[in-house]
Amino acid sequence: MLSIRVLRESRAPSADALTSGERRVALDPATAGKLAMAVSKDAESPVVTIESGAGTHAFFNDEAYADTRGVTVADDDSGRGDAELVLCVRPPEPEAIDQLAEGSVLVGLLAPFQSKALIERCKARKITALSMELVPRISRAQSMDALSSQAAAAGYHCALTAAHEASVFFPMLTTAAGTIRPARVIVVGAGVAGLQAIATARRLGAQVWAYDIRAAAREQVESLGAKMIDTGVDASGEGGYARELTEDEKAKQAEALAKHLSTAHAVITTAAIPGRRSPQIISEDMVKRMQPGSVIVDLAAEGGGNCALTKAGETVMSGGVKIIGPTDIASELPVNASEMYAKNLFNLLSPFIEDGELKLDFEDAVIGPMCITRNGDVVHDGVRKALEESA
Amino acid sequence: MLSIRVLRESRAPSADALTSGERRVALDPATAGKLAMAVSKDAESPVVTIESGAGTHAFFNDEAYADTRGVTVADDDSGRGDAELVLCVRPPEPEAIDQLAEGSVLVGLLAPFQSKALIERCKARKITALSMELVPRISRAQSMDALSSQAAAAGYHCALTAAHEASVFFPMLTTAAGTIRPARVIVVGAGVAGLQAIATARRLGAQVWAYDIRAAAREQVESLGAKMIDTGVDASGEGGYARELTEDEKAKQAEALAKHLSTAHAVITTAAIPGRRSPQIISEDMVKRMQPGSVIVDLAAEGGGNCALTKAGETVMSGGVKIIGPTDIASELPVNASEMYAKNLFNLLSPFIEDGELKLDFEDAVIGPMCITRNGDVVHDGVRKALEESA
Repeated sequence: MLSIRVLRESRAPSADALTSGERRVALDPATAGKLAMAVSKDAESPVVTIESGAGTHAFFNDEAYADTRGVTVADDDSGRGDAELVLCVRPPEPEAIDQLAEGSVLVGLLAPFQSKALIERCKARKITALSMELVPRISRAQSMDALSSQAAAAGYHCALTAAHEASVFFPMLTTAAGTIRPARVIVVGAGVAGLQAIATARRLGAQVWAYDIRAAAREQVESLGAKMIDTGVDASGEGGYARELTEDEKAKQAEALAKHLSTAHAVITTAAIPGRRSPQIISEDMVKRMQPGSVIVDLAAEGGGNCALTKAGETVMSGGVKIIGPTDIASELPVNASEMYAKNLFNLLSPFIEDGELKLDFEDAVIGPMCITRNGDVVHDGVRKALEESA
Repeated sequence: MLSIRVLRESRAPSADALTSGERRVALDPATAGKLAMAVSKDAESPVVTIESGAGTHAFFNDEAYADTRGVTVADDDSGRGDAELVLCVRPPEPEAIDQLAEGSVLVGLLAPFQSKALIERCKARKITALSMELVPRISRAQSMDALSSQAAAAGYHCALTAAHEASVFFPMLTTAAGTIRPARVIVVGAGVAGLQAIATARRLGAQVWAYDIRAAAREQVESLGAKMIDTGVDASGEGGYARELTEDEKAKQAEALAKHLSTAHAVITTAAIPGRRSPQIISEDMVKRMQPGSVIVDLAAEGGGNCALTKAGETVMSGGVKIIGPTDIASELPVNASEMYAKNLFNLLSPFIEDGELKLDFEDAVIGPMCITRNGDVVHDGVRKALEESA
């Protein structure tokens, strides 16, 4: 019978829950129980083993797992080799791979283009590694798309950070001492995170403009009550991401954006491209033209940032403009972010559980593209190429 | 002709704008200009003098004041003695009073029940001190009511802090990975700050319950889409504040509140009584019954806090509950908070400017009650009594 293990995150915060770090856990107790039941409704021994403390930072304590049918808690790492299916959020330490059984399946946000050592160990130990970042953007896979579910959390939270750090009210306010006009908010990038940031800033009553080089984003932006910044350039590309632009197009866009930025009270940038450095969209010069007291929240900070002045994990002041580079943003909503991620895993894996065993179909339109190592080979073309180039 | 001076705040942050402190300024450039025009439309020398850097932390720089007709910037303190009307936000250092001219008028949030040394200096120097906290709660004075305008800013900001620090989404969210239920938020105290906190949490989509011992608060709470926690006890008192309760009533209320708190994701407490210690409403035991991952934002922290575990200016973790004790909250919205405060001052003072001079009427229903010292006497009964008791 399938044995499933949930790893304690390697980047979890230390004992003090106020420190940052990875606070999510791959399965919340409810979804752990659901997955256990999908394997077997009447198993005598537990199906899912969660490592002690793995859920603590998401406020799911060991007791909540232990009280769930089909789920048990492991006090140490010694049983990692017994699992056939191993689940995590962020990439485990490469050393952890040596503790896993040969041929076992590892599923998580493995950052395949940044995890060379990890992938080489997976290859050496014949681990089947499935990268949640590589779930294809097809409609059948929407409910498995962890990038989207976590981006929704990140976009929401960055909009709250922007409102919290702004020096003015987001909503219009009518008081006995006069009327305060709504804040002007600009959201750069209208993907899942950007749309959620727009929705949140709109909920708070701000006037919102969106900047996206894909003209196709207009409809969604406008349906949320925001306006598109018109640059006269369209850069729609494949797979929902944007294509590269010419220098002329870039200059034209930059000036249109700079003009809007100069009147903004808050800016939220969300243009992240998985596996690549975030595009630099807001230059130092554009920041110089912004109003003192305005704020930039750069959701793409971990990937290098959309603003030239962003420093990941820090807040920088430049000419009265506050530039915030948050990291581990989805971890700021650890409960919901973990629950959504767990559902993504459940939706991905449960269709392949048959008679109590995991029977992955590597010809499947979702499983195939997300498989990076299998039977001692790096089977994902893009990842193999990136590994060879960096060698 | 009336000469007006705006003090640089004594508790302003140091050079680094990221540090906390008093970031508001008594007049923004626009209102400074309006006040100057109310004194004289064609004065040859400036009417309002602002101390250099006084507006910096509210993002009003010296140039913005210098560019305003009737307004000038002073590089040092040497001219303080030339002013007949002196404006501030928080109480100045007592030493600053010695720099003012005898008989000059000082107006600000002077914290009259906590500013013994200041009041004694005002008395000695025959300063006319008007305390903005003592503006009576009559309808004519609404537009002068700085406690209300600043409480609106504080309530809004504390709700944002609660949303930002909560471990779950405030809004209901429908995603491909399932539906997330809205957060449960409890707002304690439904005064100006509490109502603004309710409105903000509601804007974000949370389910909101309000707790107020004045049954009269129900209508306003419900008009914002929130529900009252029913305790079966009414404690409406005079002046819009609550009366003291019996022990039995308190126990009944406490249990009703504790039950609601145990299911809350975020709690915002706003029960501050000017000039007195904030009532302790959330006991250590109530916090113990709350869910791990929930958050309390205690707007009353500066006055001692509504929660037993609150520490002013700190964030405390207790059993997985995060208790935040913000200070200088209105300063978190320095632009709007300063603008509203400045309008309060303008609305208060401009009716008494005649032929370019300030002619205060101490029989006036607003000026009378807010005057604490005049002609070498402490003229406010409550303040005099408090000073005598503390002697």
